[in-house]
Amino acid sequence: MSEAAKPRPKLFYAPGACSLAVQIALQEAGADYEALKIDTKAGVQTRPEYLKINPKGRVPAVVTRRGVLTEVPAILQWVAVGWPEAKLAPLKDPWAMAQVLSFNVFLCSSIHPAFAHAWRPYRYADGEDCHAAMRAKAPEQLGLYFQVVEDGLADGRTWVFGQDYSISDIYLSVFAAWLQREPEFAAERFPLVRKHLERVHQRPAVRRALEIEGLTPI
Amino acid sequence: MSEAAKPRPKLFYAPGACSLAVQIALQEAGADYEALKIDTKAGVQTRPEYLKINPKGRVPAVVTRRGVLTEVPAILQWVAVGWPEAKLAPLKDPWAMAQVLSFNVFLCSSIHPAFAHAWRPYRYADGEDCHAAMRAKAPEQLGLYFQVVEDGLADGRTWVFGQDYSISDIYLSVFAAWLQREPEFAAERFPLVRKHLERVHQRPAVRRALEIEGLTPI
Repeated sequence: MSEAAKPRPKLFYAPGACSLAVQIALQEAGADYEALKIDTKAGVQTRPEYLKINPKGRVPAVVTRRGVLTEVPAILQWVAVGWPEAKLAPLKDPWAMAQVLSFNVFLCSSIHPAFAHAWRPYRYADGEDCHAAMRAKAPEQLGLYFQVVEDGLADGRTWVFGQDYSISDIYLSVFAAWLQREPEFAAERFPLVRKHLERVHQRPAVRRALEIEGLTPI
Repeated sequence: MSEAAKPRPKLFYAPGACSLAVQIALQEAGADYEALKIDTKAGVQTRPEYLKINPKGRVPAVVTRRGVLTEVPAILQWVAVGWPEAKLAPLKDPWAMAQVLSFNVFLCSSIHPAFAHAWRPYRYADGEDCHAAMRAKAPEQLGLYFQVVEDGLADGRTWVFGQDYSISDIYLSVFAAWLQREPEFAAERFPLVRKHLERVHQRPAVRRALEIEGLTPI
């Protein structure tokens, strides 16, 4: 099959969700792909037709000619490896690749759930009082985790790994933007994270991704 | 520096914690490393000397001559790439590597937190009532997530990705063992996960890892 005849990858996303990281990475890569919006507020991600694509009922999912890929850190690594000319990760250095992955795994396994405790407490416990208690605790958890990120930026570096922009900067920017959404999250505790977010949002590829999702830069 | 003079990697682990996946992978790889037990019940992971190694105050951490690496999916990928003769991942196929990573990210970002809600609810909310509510909800969450894994094994495959044992089998075995620990988790809902765990525990390298941590096979 010629390159032109190959089916384009399809990205299923919800505006501003963690799928935004994939949207940005594909824009940075200059990939030829199709972006398909899922209305998560209407619950489209739990309907049978979407569950056939992603049985986990979440975004993002990327459909390629080899099958469906889910989970942001895995999709980001796949983009970085598949579009090497975009230089989105230190592909030739397994140690440095492991550090990039470690950072991204921290985002998905610690920072992302900390937001979910604030916004979707009903997943984790029944009862209004308990939901309120989880929301009340979330700023403390977010504080612990974002402090690790803030400390990592304290030497004045431009990007998470120094001079070289990577999929870790892309992924961090999604959660840094979430942090600005609610006064209770006290984003002012993390000025370096905010400045990093501003740098990411100045990139043309990021602006294109935000525009596709109907979002405005910070 | 000669190979023999290189400092051996050090693995900081707690018996039976998610660090067990790294212990198993290093045993499967035949790696020359040092295993250092952290008494997490005594809180050693939050003392200043350990926080210098891992500011996140968790296990595992692997100290190598290039620095410290944390987060299980990242360490597992580093082992698979660094000891290719052990064939712990489909190294030459970026798509297949992404699928392995996707599976492992699902374990660390969905399944691991589901156990944390049952065992460490105080991280996520204050108040005894709310802790009880989180523990009560955990089996439902575990059920949703382990069903995805169970369904993936339903075609009678030996390992998560078919014929080839990988770091995904290693990592799954840790959480499958956790699932057996409490009657409330209702592990009997997932017989294929249990059989998979039994297969993993029959491997000599896994038995060595369990012995180092003072654990008995299933």
